[in-house]
This record gives sequence, structure tokens and C-alpha cells, in this order.
Amino acid sequence: MTTKKGAATRLRIVEAAAAEIRERGTNATTLDDVGRRSGTGKGQMFYYFPAGREQLLLAVAELEAERVFDDQEPYLSELTSRAAWEAWRDLIVERYRDQGLHCPLGVLIADVGRYSPAARAVTAQLVRRWQECVRTGIEVTQAAGEADPGLDADRTAAAVIATVQGGVTVLLSTGSAEHLEAGLNLCLDRLLL
Amino acid sequence: MTTKKGAATRLRIVEAAAAEIRERGTNATTLDDVGRRSGTGKGQMFYYFPAGREQLLLAVAELEAERVFDDQEPYLSELTSRAAWEAWRDLIVERYRDQGLHCPLGVLIADVGRYSPAARAVTAQLVRRWQECVRTGIEVTQAAGEADPGLDADRTAAAVIATVQGGVTVLLSTGSAEHLEAGLNLCLDRLLL
Repeated sequence: MTTKKGAATRLRIVEAAAAEIRERGTNATTLDDVGRRSGTGKGQMFYYFPAGREQLLLAVAELEAERVFDDQEPYLSELTSRAAWEAWRDLIVERYRDQGLHCPLGVLIADVGRYSPAARAVTAQLVRRWQECVRTGIEVTQAAGEADPGLDADRTAAAVIATVQGGVTVLLSTGSAEHLEAGLNLCLDRLLL
Repeated sequence: MTTKKGAATRLRIVEAAAAEIRERGTNATTLDDVGRRSGTGKGQMFYYFPAGREQLLLAVAELEAERVFDDQEPYLSELTSRAAWEAWRDLIVERYRDQGLHCPLGVLIADVGRYSPAARAVTAQLVRRWQECVRTGIEVTQAAGEADPGLDADRTAAAVIATVQGGVTVLLSTGSAEHLEAGLNLCLDRLLL
């Protein structure tokens, strides 16, 4: 289970499941689909995910959460100045605009998140980690004298996360990044000096 | 079809479907469930929704959209002063906090919205109408001298909508209204004088 080959097989299954979910949605994705796409037999699927579909969905949620963070680098961990915040905003707006109606985080939070306590734990952890990154950026930018020192960094980070999440959710319905961009602009306008 | 009795039957079916979706999610709701809950036979279901499940889901989307607006009254159409905006914010935070993990708008946009062009049209229309209400409120409040006159009312309204939507989406995962409240506070802090 911890061999390199085993880890590679497990990852192949999780990536196939993630691809299926991106294309067809969580609820339309079956274990058979994932087996076919990854070229994995039922025995192997059961070996890596003995608890079945739910366990696999959680692994996909974790994979997609990592991607959400990776996609925001190198900016997310270097939110230290006005220029850095604006580069991060531009990256997010461009990336989600390109992704259009296929947002893995949206799928994660909306389809998996609502019905399963275990999946909710994964998404709550993602929100916390994301908020901590943004909060740290706010604190560093405040210390550098480029952000309003009167703002509560954690609450402002929560507001930024809400705005990005909502902008993406609206984008999933309308196909337009207008709300995402307007929301981020309002946050940065309030935050930066 | 346009008789009062017919309209009442149709509404009973749509409300039963809405209740099923609220309890079990869109994908787990079948026409049989809705028929049982509303006490409606297959013939009547087919009479009112000849195109089937998709047509019924669209009718539910429209019903839930109306509820989203009704739930924000009497404040949404009277956003004319700081006091009115704050009352609206408090109403939204309290209502969604009480609703917890059962947000019909979240279901609407996330489950129905992503996969069906017709449902996306309904949700896009809801977003537009909601944004117009908020934009009108911003303009009136600007004219009254209680909101920053330098803000673009439509873009600011888009930012507010994104924030509320995202705060609710995060709430659906975490059960906490913290992001919703922080996001609305940041918007009002930027908007109001």
C-alpha cells in the first residue's frame, strides 16, 4: 500500500475519478466508469478503496483541494504587496474564466459537500487552510504598510474567500467572470492603501 | 391548464418536488417520489410536465428563485439608507444561519445549474434580477448621500451578490455563517459613508 507502485496506482484511480467528475458531475460517476477510465480491475479498486465510492470521492476532494492551492501559486503564498494581490486577482479571474463551467472546487463543495459529513470535513479544512494563507498575506501586507492596518485580518480573509467562492459559483451558472472580478476588486479596494 | 384548480395542482406538484429536493438533493429526487408526496398520479404529472423531470426541476428553480426574493423582503426593495442595508444584512445572515445546510438557492445553482442550459437560464435570470435590486439600492443610497458616490453601482452590486452567494456556499460546507457575515460587512464597510 505504501510502495511507489501502489501509490501510483492509487493516484491513477483518483485522477481518473476526478476527470470523470469534471466531465459528468459527481452523481453521474460510477465506480465502473472510474475502473474503465483508469484501466483498473474491481479487485484493485476494492484494495485501494475498501469503503467504496464515498472513500474514493473523499480522495478526489483532497486531490482537487491540492489543485486549488497549486493553481493559485506562486502568488497565494506571496501576498505581500499591492502588486502581488493584483497579480493573484488576475490569475484567479483568468483561470476560472478559462475553466468556465468546469470548476472542481465548485463540484467539491456543492456536490460532495452538502450530503456527506466526511466530505464536509475535507471542504471545511480546505476553507480553513485557504483562509489562513489569505490572512497571512493580509498581515504581511499590513506590516509592509500597503494594507489598511485597521482591518481584522482573519475576518477580511473570510470575506475574500466568500467573494471568490461566490464569484466562481455564479460563474458556474452564468459562464461570466464578472461577479468574481467585481468581488475581488471590491475586496482589494477596501484592503489596499 | 389555466384554471384555478389546474394552477393549484401544478403548484402542489412543484412544492412537493421542492420539498423532496430540499430534503434529499436534486439527484436523489425521482418523479415517483414527487407523485407520492403530492398525491398526484402519473397522468397528472405528465399533463403538467410533459417534458418530464427536467421541466419539473425548472419549475422548482423558478419557485425557489421567488422564495429567495420573498425571503429578503421587506428590505431588499428598500435599500435606501445605512440602517436599511444593515437590516438587510442581519436578515440574510440570520436566515441562512437558521437554514444551515439546507439552502434552496445553493441547490438550485449548484445541482441544477451546472448541467442544464435551460436551468442555467433560470439561475442567470435570478442573478440578473437580484443584481438589479441591489444596484437600484446602491444608486438610491448614493443619491441620499449615504453611499460612496465614486463606486460603480452595477459592479458593486455584482460584488455584493458574489459575496452573499459565496458566503452561503461556504456555509453549506462548514455550517458556519462567519464568511457570509464577514463578506457582507466588508461590502457595506466599503459602500456606506
